[in-house]
Amino acid sequence: MEQVAVIARARALFGASPRPLAFVPTMGALHAGHLELVRQVRPRAATVGASIFVNPLQFGANEDLVRYPRDLERDSLKLAAEGVDVLFAPDAAEMYAPGFSTSVDPGPLATVFEGAVRPGHFRGVATVIVKLLNVVQPDTLVLGQKDAQQAVILRKVLRELDAGVNLEVVPTVREPDGLAMSSRNAYLDTAQRTAAPSLHRALSAVLEVLERGAGKLDALAAGAKQLDASAKLEYLDVVDAEDFAPLERLRRPAFVIGAARFGTTRLIDNLWVR
Amino acid sequence: MEQVAVIARARALFGASPRPLAFVPTMGALHAGHLELVRQVRPRAATVGASIFVNPLQFGANEDLVRYPRDLERDSLKLAAEGVDVLFAPDAAEMYAPGFSTSVDPGPLATVFEGAVRPGHFRGVATVIVKLLNVVQPDTLVLGQKDAQQAVILRKVLRELDAGVNLEVVPTVREPDGLAMSSRNAYLDTAQRTAAPSLHRALSAVLEVLERGAGKLDALAAGAKQLDASAKLEYLDVVDAEDFAPLERLRRPAFVIGAARFGTTRLIDNLWVR
Repeated sequence: MEQVAVIARARALFGASPRPLAFVPTMGALHAGHLELVRQVRPRAATVGASIFVNPLQFGANEDLVRYPRDLERDSLKLAAEGVDVLFAPDAAEMYAPGFSTSVDPGPLATVFEGAVRPGHFRGVATVIVKLLNVVQPDTLVLGQKDAQQAVILRKVLRELDAGVNLEVVPTVREPDGLAMSSRNAYLDTAQRTAAPSLHRALSAVLEVLERGAGKLDALAAGAKQLDASAKLEYLDVVDAEDFAPLERLRRPAFVIGAARFGTTRLIDNLWVR
Repeated sequence: MEQVAVIARARALFGASPRPLAFVPTMGALHAGHLELVRQVRPRAATVGASIFVNPLQFGANEDLVRYPRDLERDSLKLAAEGVDVLFAPDAAEMYAPGFSTSVDPGPLATVFEGAVRPGHFRGVATVIVKLLNVVQPDTLVLGQKDAQQAVILRKVLRELDAGVNLEVVPTVREPDGLAMSSRNAYLDTAQRTAAPSLHRALSAVLEVLERGAGKLDALAAGAKQLDASAKLEYLDVVDAEDFAPLERLRRPAFVIGAARFGTTRLIDNLWVR
């Protein structure tokens, strides 16, 4: 695996790589969910590229940018073991020169759910992804379903900007007790870790009630009951999988989505109903 | 010359074109200034692409989108005569599907001078240029100096988004009496056409006084005196050519910039001081 930190060098390296080229952007702190993204596309891609970049633009002022887990050496070994060909791992100064002011704004979809709780988050995500795609120029962009709203927003942004890239969304990988894999799970203490799978149970309960034909209010009430008493629910809803518009009854494809705090740690999760 | 209206077809055609590829985006209503853009790059490009698209996103609600001059057939003949290889001329529905919501925001530079008078204008320009570059994927983007602020903003946006494209800015072409070529000159009646070159005289007077070592206030006063009494001055200033920051004294490279209304027609002009 080649590892590069400089944009010009990455552009040259990816430009000379065999096609098709699949690209897996990450913020590092890699877990089995990230590695599953690589595994899904490795057999069909002549080149698999990945990036590790903890993107300051997508963190709010009171969020966990500084304490976000970073271990480039270990992450790099994991990606190499999965057969990644090129790893692009720039620092923030390489990506954002002094005076940087351009942003890619996805519009209204970026202001609901995760976007309502984290203002500016999806603008930061869209901006860095447009930059990364310009450097890497992949045929396929690989994203995880765990960040469902991110995937829906990026599909719209990339289609609307005519980015000419395929988007592949890979199902969420879970711990045996149902907890969705997330780099932020590392923040949980023992009690919080025990409580955390209740978010997945809440989503499952919502879906079960909806599948029986009930309306949303009943379903959300059943879901909320599953969440551990120590957790603080931020949102719980069922939305259209294409545009994240809230649904009153189940209509496929949909996402059942939820976010909750366990102590100071925010976790999100969703079920993809196809 | 091949002419295409569909994004997918344009992408395929440009993708199969010999390199280097130079690209000249226009809104049509072509005059000698546009053709000069083609002439400047034709000898050095294996492929010259052009676009004609009157971009609704860059017009304000009270601006001249509807009456903006359109004559695709005549424009197409002019570009073919200059040796353009591929003309991309989509309609608004092809560029902006229902529900379109993504935008590229250049930041603070888009809110001064032209951006102050035309809120959202440069956001619309940056959005359409990012789309066009994604479709055409040129080596060189060719812009006119007449829209100096646009060129400065796009240079920043394309550098910050790592677009990997060279920007070439071609000097303004003028009528014999000094009036900068502009599609909007067609709106002028006889009296306004007679008054319009006074904008260029105003800029020249500003520069002359600055070159004598005077401060900005004296220079702007001398410039304002040159403007025809029938015109309404919107702004007149001298700015750094890199970042459009207003200057108190001449320091090269700079632009002397101005905008004025002749009847209902807004004209802009500048002098590039190198």
